[in-house]
Amino acid sequence: MPRTFGRNAGQDPIAHMGEFDRIARYLAPLAGPEGLCLADDAALHTPPPGFDFVMTKDMLAEGVHVPTGCVPDIFARRALRSNLSDLAAMGAKPLGYLLGLSLPPHLDDIWLQAFCNALGADQLRYGLSLWGGDSICVDGPITVSITALGLVPAGTALRRDGAQPGDDVFVSGFIGQAAAGLHLLNEDAEEDACGWHTAYVAPEPRISLGDALRGRATAAIDVSDGLVADVGHIATASKVSIALALNDMPVHPQNPLGIEDAITAGDDYELAFTAPPEKRSEIFTLSESLGLRLTKIGQVRAAAAGQEPCTVLDTLGNAVAFKKTGWQHG
Amino acid sequence: MPRTFGRNAGQDPIAHMGEFDRIARYLAPLAGPEGLCLADDAALHTPPPGFDFVMTKDMLAEGVHVPTGCVPDIFARRALRSNLSDLAAMGAKPLGYLLGLSLPPHLDDIWLQAFCNALGADQLRYGLSLWGGDSICVDGPITVSITALGLVPAGTALRRDGAQPGDDVFVSGFIGQAAAGLHLLNEDAEEDACGWHTAYVAPEPRISLGDALRGRATAAIDVSDGLVADVGHIATASKVSIALALNDMPVHPQNPLGIEDAITAGDDYELAFTAPPEKRSEIFTLSESLGLRLTKIGQVRAAAAGQEPCTVLDTLGNAVAFKKTGWQHG
Repeated sequence: MPRTFGRNAGQDPIAHMGEFDRIARYLAPLAGPEGLCLADDAALHTPPPGFDFVMTKDMLAEGVHVPTGCVPDIFARRALRSNLSDLAAMGAKPLGYLLGLSLPPHLDDIWLQAFCNALGADQLRYGLSLWGGDSICVDGPITVSITALGLVPAGTALRRDGAQPGDDVFVSGFIGQAAAGLHLLNEDAEEDACGWHTAYVAPEPRISLGDALRGRATAAIDVSDGLVADVGHIATASKVSIALALNDMPVHPQNPLGIEDAITAGDDYELAFTAPPEKRSEIFTLSESLGLRLTKIGQVRAAAAGQEPCTVLDTLGNAVAFKKTGWQHG
Repeated sequence: MPRTFGRNAGQDPIAHMGEFDRIARYLAPLAGPEGLCLADDAALHTPPPGFDFVMTKDMLAEGVHVPTGCVPDIFARRALRSNLSDLAAMGAKPLGYLLGLSLPPHLDDIWLQAFCNALGADQLRYGLSLWGGDSICVDGPITVSITALGLVPAGTALRRDGAQPGDDVFVSGFIGQAAAGLHLLNEDAEEDACGWHTAYVAPEPRISLGDALRGRATAAIDVSDGLVADVGHIATASKVSIALALNDMPVHPQNPLGIEDAITAGDDYELAFTAPPEKRSEIFTLSESLGLRLTKIGQVRAAAAGQEPCTVLDTLGNAVAFKKTGWQHG
């Protein structure tokens, strides 16, 4: 990972560029019609009838959420897709986003161009456009603050608070892939036979899965903070407890982190969800039609006093103790 | 202005607090029903029929947009109200907002509490609620990134691109008030006989004016970047030129900055707008009913090649030259 890419490379530092130049050169080409060419005070959108709006905001800072020196295309993808993953967890389709950029003055224009190119590629990939935003030049780490907007048919949004005792618990994909990818990135290795590198540098928000889960799942969440912590959030919001089977966790057998670290690490954009047992065959059919691994990993139970929201059980039914259950972003 | 308020005052630094604690203690009490108690992946809103959505994002950083050591209530008000001012410029009524906070680890919880209290007071004042957001702990200046959402009856939003040759140009309030207030603040004086202090620490977004201008004004903008620059943005977007009369500028006679600095300084949240001459009496009636000074300051003209979008004329019709026409936020 070329850590100095875009820095001090003899190019124009962005401090030499005014705010309006930055908008005109790099951001306006990304704007959709709602953005009014980024030339007005605000974006304007006529909502289609019969839909609810879903809105989310995730901030990513260099040195905290992505490594110091993170290349601009990885930064852009993780910043935008972490928001799309939140939309997916509600069953919503992405529509547009507002972009807040806090950029240090020494950053050069090559960085900004590459960052915007990566956003543009993702806009095409996911069918959304830039509606507005703000960019400021501040001495501090690069910070990206995105607000994403999506649509979901009225009244059908997935939420965290609908899990019922007796429901199955599922998760998509392999867990701990992004953490393994970050681990490899930190070691400057780019081996990707197991999809780890891709899982970190280009995580796939599960938009089609979220869409298909509307009317099937009783609760859903994206597991960006770690599987155990995020399943715990479903349990807390739904006022139930959830038991997960350690043995059923979809952790890649060659994952260098080991199963316990994998299921408590953050940065995966998979979906965890609950569904009643009578939907089980539908869920597995869905897995085939989407070409996406969906694994049954646990069961929703009634909450009991003094019990953790989410417990991971070994094959003998004993609760596994973890050093930490999830990642808090500080 | 007590510059060390909330810093190193022996209280709990926010770094000792996890993200979920911050949300539960300080932010969740601000959440409206759309925010789902800030306990879900995203906010959910059913748009009322017959309205357009207006969305805007403004970022404020300590040391750039507010002075280093700015007290939390001023920071909160300026951050939220700068967005409400953008909504007002489109004629929209505020509905909700998403809050992005980047906070340095040494900041203590008293600061955060005071900041959230000020947001809560403004939520009541302007009838909006917190829908969601993100807060991160990063070594850098305090940065607030707000996305505000508003509603406007479908098809009636004010824009910048509708000014027509022959239209009058108006501006609300006095110009250069906030800059005078900031000047006084920097001198640790808090004299406010002329409203300067209030104009900086609690600027009033012109929401009722924006609402009343729908159907009357042909173009509008808020003058947060400086009157001359912002009127220039209307001219550019509308493909016209605009002449302003230096002598007609509503600058308070005691403003210590002088007229030229006042009309090129930023930070006022007044509205500049254009309207056809046949609306002139309606505009002045509006001024009376809102109890808000509205001054006719210029005229829209056809664009001519090589001409500046906005020219300020002295009493002899000569163009005034400025050191700078407006404030770029870097």
